[in-house]
Amino acid sequence: AFQYTELAQYVDSHQEEYVEALRDWVAVESDSSNVLKRSELNRMMEMVAQKLRQMGGTVELVDVGEQELPDGSTLALPKVATAQFGSDPNKRTVCVYGHVDVQPAKLEDGWATEPYNLTDINGNLYGRGASDNKAPVLAWIHAVAAYQALSMELPVNVKFLIEGMEETGSNGLDAMILAQRDTFFSDVDYIIISDCGWLSRRPALTYGTRGNCYFYAEVEGPKQDLHSGVYGGAVIEPMIDLIGILDTLISPSGKILIPGIREAVAPLSDEEWKMYQDIQFDMDNYRNKVGVSQLMYNNKVDLLAHLWRYPTVSIHGIEGAFSDPGTKTVIPAKVTAKFSIRQVPNMDPAAVKKQVTDYLHSVFAKRKSPNKLKVTMVIGAKPWLADTQHALYEAGKAAVKRVFQMDPDLIREGGTIPVARTFQDVTGKSIIMMPIGGFDDGLHSQNEKISRYNYIEGTKLFIAYLNEVSQITIQV
Amino acid sequence: AFQYTELAQYVDSHQEEYVEALRDWVAVESDSSNVLKRSELNRMMEMVAQKLRQMGGTVELVDVGEQELPDGSTLALPKVATAQFGSDPNKRTVCVYGHVDVQPAKLEDGWATEPYNLTDINGNLYGRGASDNKAPVLAWIHAVAAYQALSMELPVNVKFLIEGMEETGSNGLDAMILAQRDTFFSDVDYIIISDCGWLSRRPALTYGTRGNCYFYAEVEGPKQDLHSGVYGGAVIEPMIDLIGILDTLISPSGKILIPGIREAVAPLSDEEWKMYQDIQFDMDNYRNKVGVSQLMYNNKVDLLAHLWRYPTVSIHGIEGAFSDPGTKTVIPAKVTAKFSIRQVPNMDPAAVKKQVTDYLHSVFAKRKSPNKLKVTMVIGAKPWLADTQHALYEAGKAAVKRVFQMDPDLIREGGTIPVARTFQDVTGKSIIMMPIGGFDDGLHSQNEKISRYNYIEGTKLFIAYLNEVSQITIQV
Ligand SMILES: [Zn+2]
Ligand SMILES: [Zn+2]
Ligand SMILES: [Zn+2]
Ligand SMILES: [Zn+2]
Repeated sequence: AFQYTELAQYVDSHQEEYVEALRDWVAVESDSSNVLKRSELNRMMEMVAQKLRQMGGTVELVDVGEQELPDGSTLALPKVATAQFGSDPNKRTVCVYGHVDVQPAKLEDGWATEPYNLTDINGNLYGRGASDNKAPVLAWIHAVAAYQALSMELPVNVKFLIEGMEETGSNGLDAMILAQRDTFFSDVDYIIISDCGWLSRRPALTYGTRGNCYFYAEVEGPKQDLHSGVYGGAVIEPMIDLIGILDTLISPSGKILIPGIREAVAPLSDEEWKMYQDIQFDMDNYRNKVGVSQLMYNNKVDLLAHLWRYPTVSIHGIEGAFSDPGTKTVIPAKVTAKFSIRQVPNMDPAAVKKQVTDYLHSVFAKRKSPNKLKVTMVIGAKPWLADTQHALYEAGKAAVKRVFQMDPDLIREGGTIPVARTFQDVTGKSIIMMPIGGFDDGLHSQNEKISRYNYIEGTKLFIAYLNEVSQITIQV
Repeated sequence: AFQYTELAQYVDSHQEEYVEALRDWVAVESDSSNVLKRSELNRMMEMVAQKLRQMGGTVELVDVGEQELPDGSTLALPKVATAQFGSDPNKRTVCVYGHVDVQPAKLEDGWATEPYNLTDINGNLYGRGASDNKAPVLAWIHAVAAYQALSMELPVNVKFLIEGMEETGSNGLDAMILAQRDTFFSDVDYIIISDCGWLSRRPALTYGTRGNCYFYAEVEGPKQDLHSGVYGGAVIEPMIDLIGILDTLISPSGKILIPGIREAVAPLSDEEWKMYQDIQFDMDNYRNKVGVSQLMYNNKVDLLAHLWRYPTVSIHGIEGAFSDPGTKTVIPAKVTAKFSIRQVPNMDPAAVKKQVTDYLHSVFAKRKSPNKLKVTMVIGAKPWLADTQHALYEAGKAAVKRVFQMDPDLIREGGTIPVARTFQDVTGKSIIMMPIGGFDDGLHSQNEKISRYNYIEGTKLFIAYLNEVSQITIQV
């Protein structure tokens, strides 16, 4: 029988140890976007492998090749750590995915504490990577270690897949997953991702993420940049053409104007509406966190629906125009707008590519400009959506109930976690996202933190979840 | 009597010497925008002073203070060189303005030759600063020196005002002109600027420049940049608001949409139309030079009028948005567009400021956005326009006729030469712009050059012009 109480007590009595482990990991500046920090990132991967080896896991650091730098040189990618605990063919096998690279952080960016020195303030553990994603990875490790420490058999076989390039696009990971589909992944039944956060103080299970179609719209005119005093009035400026077409993408109230996009979106069902209605979500708190006087929608259901299950257009910026401080009187010769459209069921990136390209060309044609427009879709990531009635989610609900004495919110993520989609497409396995981060952890921002509560109770949740997964009856 | 032939012969027989002098000057990388080149720029000013001293002028290197750098430190501005040749109260006194700083240039930018090594290819002298503005300054010096070499009395007193910060906004010069209004400038009758170019192979006199009102339009939303996956759909994006208002400034066909702007412009008179009609201007050549398949206007008069005497809107770029290569999924929190409106008679920058600010705020209000818009006018430079019937221009026409056996084109400049306006406002003196650069000299571009022809014949033009100015009868 499952001895949850003993395991939970073990966790409670070892929490200082867990905080110290997190301190050691946060101290490593494993910023994957900064090539000068690559040795730190490599050291981080070694630390992960070392910890898993000490626990008796079968550990490998898998070479996933190199990346090309903008200057044309190449740099070895950090290795990907895999580990296995147990290989009982009579048990289920789960694979926990996580990452130990982090976003950049500097004290000068506006941190109240040193970002790489874990600092406990009123029960919150501040540090870069604390919530995204080092504490969740450690919580999974502690969960396995707790069973071991109490000499309890693991209820399922547990595999780990820990990478170091997530924050810059998981370079090398897709190929590695594909290469190991019939080896490392062959006996995996379920994949668990804990790389996101709750929506409120209530625990959550995440069942969907939006995809993303990222576009470049390039308008090219004169053969070189021109002085606006000398040439202004003689040429049709590419920047003005570009602004003209960008202005036709979305209305001031957020309505996407590209024909066909809205029509493709799965209609909001009554059950969904009801589910959103029941979710605990503090609009005022959210509005204050974002720092705006008014959100795009002022009721919860509309807001959540537009974050999770409707597409949106964001215009990120323009390359090739003057973007520095100060005044420059230039007519840029070639300007490239970067914008993206978040993808939701049932949108199809290939169709979106055609809809956007055709639409922008038709709008541009009406301008009768001699400049040249080129529209390219450079990323086409599909959304991911799980069935919340699936046994994997039922097990999650039971684990949450055991640890927190309440039902989880069933939520979606507006952002894209492409590895979920890759797992689904390559391995065909079912995936669950089980976050333990708080709603206000400040991922990718200044003053990122995870609370002791989330870290420690999260470890208990993972312990309970391993047991629940072992109870899933085989579905044919 | 004026011995033009002897002077012209002297110039012809000394042209190799003049080319060598230009080579020495071009070899100095006097890039005023690069603070690391400041010592080169200071050396350049010393060379100018040294040359003028050797000719027996009364020379001063005037300290004009320091500039503040973006990091808050200060750097001494290059001194301004003044010189005086002759102080006969019975003669007219002209002051020649020029600059010896240059735009940046690197071989890698696409130069066919080393930019700081003057290279003669088929009679064209390639090098950064050759045409803008080192050869014209040297031509004025050679003109004075030729009179001296032949022991001919200068027909007028000649003063020089040579600066080293023109390319970055003539930092310190306005204050210096104001400070010396009642000293150095008190006996100056006319100011001559040779810092522009012809429009075709026909010599030209320039009688107007456009001014410039440069605006920042800042839209501020969330308190920090947001991830477009996580927040896209919840917030009204500042970038989308900004694009929406920028798109209302000007129509695809170049019509300025800001109420009041076009109404203020002086109407095109029949004489003006006639004058433009008579100007030698090769539309195809110009179109090819710009590198577009179609210009904004396809007839000469419309095109010239929109370059010289109609306002235009240019959108230079956006600060605060994503402008690097690659893909970033950011919702920028605060974005600032930079745009400018070229000023022409009878526009008033103060009125333009109000028109633009009111208009953008009214357009923005219609969007009902919770974001905040701030419109600032950071430069308000008035246009400059001279009377082409003025004796100074009649003298110019006569000098051109003597040297080139043809009438000059009377042209305007689309760009702003703010020092002209300062001279006019502070000293109240009449100004003439007498260019000697070719229409295809590539100022501010790669492969800048001046032809030997323009350099040498330009020197003769200045010699002849000094004589013509001495003939001007006093107007009361
Ligand atoms: Zn993450
Ligand atoms: Zn992250
Ligand atoms: Zn110049
Ligand atoms: Zn210049």
